[in-house]
Amino acid sequence: MFEIAELGHTISKPDYNAQISELRTELLLIQQQLKSCDFPVIILISGVDGGGKGEVINLLNEWLDPRYMRTVAFDTPSDEEKERPKFWRFWRTLPPKGSIGIYVGSWYSDPLSQRVYGKTDNNIIQVELMEIRQLEQELIDDGALIIKCWLHLKKDEQKKRLKALEKNPETRWQVTDRDKKHLKLYDAFLSVAEKVLTETSTGDAPWLVVEGADIRYSSLTVAQHILSRIQQHINKRKTTKAIKANDTTRKIVHLNQQNLLDSLDLSLKLDKKNYSRQLSLYQGKLNKLSRQAHNKKRSSILVFEGWDAGGKGGAIRRLTHAVDARGYQIIPIAAPTDEEQQQHYLWRFWRHIPRAGLLTIYDRSWYGRVLVERVEGFATEKQWMQAYSEIVNFEEAMTAHGIMVLKFWLHIDKDEQLARFKAREQISYKKHKITEEDYRNREKWDDYQLAVNEMVTRTSTQNAPWILVEGNDKKYARVKVLKIFCERLEKMLDEKK
Amino acid sequence: MFEIAELGHTISKPDYNAQISELRTELLLIQQQLKSCDFPVIILISGVDGGGKGEVINLLNEWLDPRYMRTVAFDTPSDEEKERPKFWRFWRTLPPKGSIGIYVGSWYSDPLSQRVYGKTDNNIIQVELMEIRQLEQELIDDGALIIKCWLHLKKDEQKKRLKALEKNPETRWQVTDRDKKHLKLYDAFLSVAEKVLTETSTGDAPWLVVEGADIRYSSLTVAQHILSRIQQHINKRKTTKAIKANDTTRKIVHLNQQNLLDSLDLSLKLDKKNYSRQLSLYQGKLNKLSRQAHNKKRSSILVFEGWDAGGKGGAIRRLTHAVDARGYQIIPIAAPTDEEQQQHYLWRFWRHIPRAGLLTIYDRSWYGRVLVERVEGFATEKQWMQAYSEIVNFEEAMTAHGIMVLKFWLHIDKDEQLARFKAREQISYKKHKITEEDYRNREKWDDYQLAVNEMVTRTSTQNAPWILVEGNDKKYARVKVLKIFCERLEKMLDEKK
Repeated sequence: MFEIAELGHTISKPDYNAQISELRTELLLIQQQLKSCDFPVIILISGVDGGGKGEVINLLNEWLDPRYMRTVAFDTPSDEEKERPKFWRFWRTLPPKGSIGIYVGSWYSDPLSQRVYGKTDNNIIQVELMEIRQLEQELIDDGALIIKCWLHLKKDEQKKRLKALEKNPETRWQVTDRDKKHLKLYDAFLSVAEKVLTETSTGDAPWLVVEGADIRYSSLTVAQHILSRIQQHINKRKTTKAIKANDTTRKIVHLNQQNLLDSLDLSLKLDKKNYSRQLSLYQGKLNKLSRQAHNKKRSSILVFEGWDAGGKGGAIRRLTHAVDARGYQIIPIAAPTDEEQQQHYLWRFWRHIPRAGLLTIYDRSWYGRVLVERVEGFATEKQWMQAYSEIVNFEEAMTAHGIMVLKFWLHIDKDEQLARFKAREQISYKKHKITEEDYRNREKWDDYQLAVNEMVTRTSTQNAPWILVEGNDKKYARVKVLKIFCERLEKMLDEKK
Repeated sequence: MFEIAELGHTISKPDYNAQISELRTELLLIQQQLKSCDFPVIILISGVDGGGKGEVINLLNEWLDPRYMRTVAFDTPSDEEKERPKFWRFWRTLPPKGSIGIYVGSWYSDPLSQRVYGKTDNNIIQVELMEIRQLEQELIDDGALIIKCWLHLKKDEQKKRLKALEKNPETRWQVTDRDKKHLKLYDAFLSVAEKVLTETSTGDAPWLVVEGADIRYSSLTVAQHILSRIQQHINKRKTTKAIKANDTTRKIVHLNQQNLLDSLDLSLKLDKKNYSRQLSLYQGKLNKLSRQAHNKKRSSILVFEGWDAGGKGGAIRRLTHAVDARGYQIIPIAAPTDEEQQQHYLWRFWRHIPRAGLLTIYDRSWYGRVLVERVEGFATEKQWMQAYSEIVNFEEAMTAHGIMVLKFWLHIDKDEQLARFKAREQISYKKHKITEEDYRNREKWDDYQLAVNEMVTRTSTQNAPWILVEGNDKKYARVKVLKIFCERLEKMLDEKK
């Protein structure tokens, strides 16, 4: 795959100068257009040592307007990064919509070098490449433009370059032992690179292989490629939007199907005496278990979803009551901030992933995508349909990192909800919780019910299961949540003993 | 100072229950009010071991609406935190306006424990306490409410508590060697604590010392204190606003004073030949120096301010051209995002402080406070007046951490600016840079000139100097910026050899 990039492409200085000024103008103009677009541009610059990555990136930095771009470089992960799933460091640096992020080193760096150094085998890199394809696909599905450039250099060119650098006393210090070592690994490196490039060149995110021997040629080629990809993408998005505008959201069809929620026994209850006995029993247990988890640096993520007035808040408070305040964080999900709005919809959840040993409770969550956004038509059918697998991937990233994920659906029936609304309206400090919207939402009960049903079916996995909680009796629900969390924690801590 | 907190305060369960429900209602109501207020509430819960910090915080978490509060706990600093000035970790976690942040462990923890363990002496802690007072004062000046609670426990009570925990096999594991060690250090701890508390109890941020032996008493006392402080503060802010509304901004008075900017020789220039020779000389130098700085983990922060069309962008590009793209970040300062608007005005600059070894370039900066915000009346006179010392403190935090800070003012005269505006309007990709606002700003030239003059006078320090750059000739200006940056870098690297 590197043959064409070994033909000795060069461009003369006059030719270069003749083209460069127009190119720079166009780059700045396209950035101006991009500003008002609703997608980010992610540019990966990779390649062999000495392939001129640094020079190309420097030139791009010079040519582009720094107000709407940034360069992201990765070193060895910090401990804050190590304590989270491996893609966390990339998510936290994604460029906002309307801007460009240039990645020096990316999700490709580690899989590539670890394979070359023999720290992983073919099976492992296969899985890693699949994860990368998934990541890129999710970003693309959200509208992102991903441009991947590979700067190639023939082996003898690489050797020549290092020699030249070493010869000159002014530049000798630039040649490190690592560079020499890499030269020896050139062949191994190239064969892994070929595998990586071929397997991750997709229709939407193809690799461009560029010969890196002549910086004028390579920088011009890369810049022109970027320019034309952005132009194309802007046009494509315009067309897609026009199509979407004509495509009215399909009405949700209610098939006469079995419903998971209907199968719950909402008559389950606990009397006061049993409740307080079990409450303190499990709170005591949880206190102990959560301290152990903290010491062992095991994190948990709990998700609470449920009907309005379903008792999420009360259940969460009974649970946190037993946990040291230093050990947990409640993330109440409200409307996204404007920084969040400029990102992929999962970004605002990624940013709160806990460091090692902590408990994070999401009060409402990423499931908004397949619940309220689906029912209210804020997300298109395509969007919420693909959200199922995006969410499963997201949670898999957590569980693969050793984080426990549990999701609670607090279920009540329609009558119980109405009774609770009415009761809340009587309590001075709860009045504000009930708005007209709550009543409006009741009218869509059946739509929500269908969405919940589908959500549970599609996203309840062994590692990140949905727990349906019979919630008409608050006491029963609270104890069930506590009990299940304890059991799961215990199991997790046992496994790793 | 702890006498009153050793009297054995308790509250009976019936009394507690009688008060608690009203208190909780009021806490929720005040949070509702707080939501629309333009200040954050910062609550520090400190005290002796066994004083019940954890229990009090757990109860506050239970009583308060989690949507508008968060608990922030600190462990040993992560490496990302260690590579920045020590207060960075606190800045990054400050609660947004309208919400409450509860701090478990705070800027007091390290100074206190390090003094107790004999790792610092009285002089050092004196300086640390001064820095803390400054930090709190800045937050308060920005409107923040700081509530500081100290949970006290008599020595024999502390001993009793640990014994009780140890006796019960269920709780024995909670008593660590560290706890026992701390018990031995009780007297030393208390004497340091007394010093810390007395010296940092200011009129705006006094310490409340609470007896911690009875959790009902202490939690009720702390919660009531929080409630009344917030109520007071809301009322106070209302009054202050009413006064401010009547207080029209003073017109800037132009005294017939010497002007630093007028003293610059704007005829300084470089011919083309000398320019390209010196440009590549210093770019080469900078390349080498910046790599050394990177290897030695020495960071630099460069600030660029100047007249519109003063040549900031061009100077920055010539400079970054010489630096590895992985080693720098340009932060163009535009309007704050909404997350940034909910914070102290310095917060959005704190968040971009580089990790070790990197160069961060601010294209416009925190000096907006004393330039555009002053001239346009966006900041009150009090605000921009106190900004000078806040900025000096901010930069001192950087330099004290070993980060080099250099500030460039790119100066041109009024005629040159007009000529550049006209020239830009002729270039297709620069046209968008010139707006009517630029012309409007020219009308306030004298006001800006005065503001710049005062800014330089008040904020140019030895460790973070202002460099005034004669900018009518772009070539001269670019080389001067490069040359001075090189010289300073060289000096810094030499010093530490």
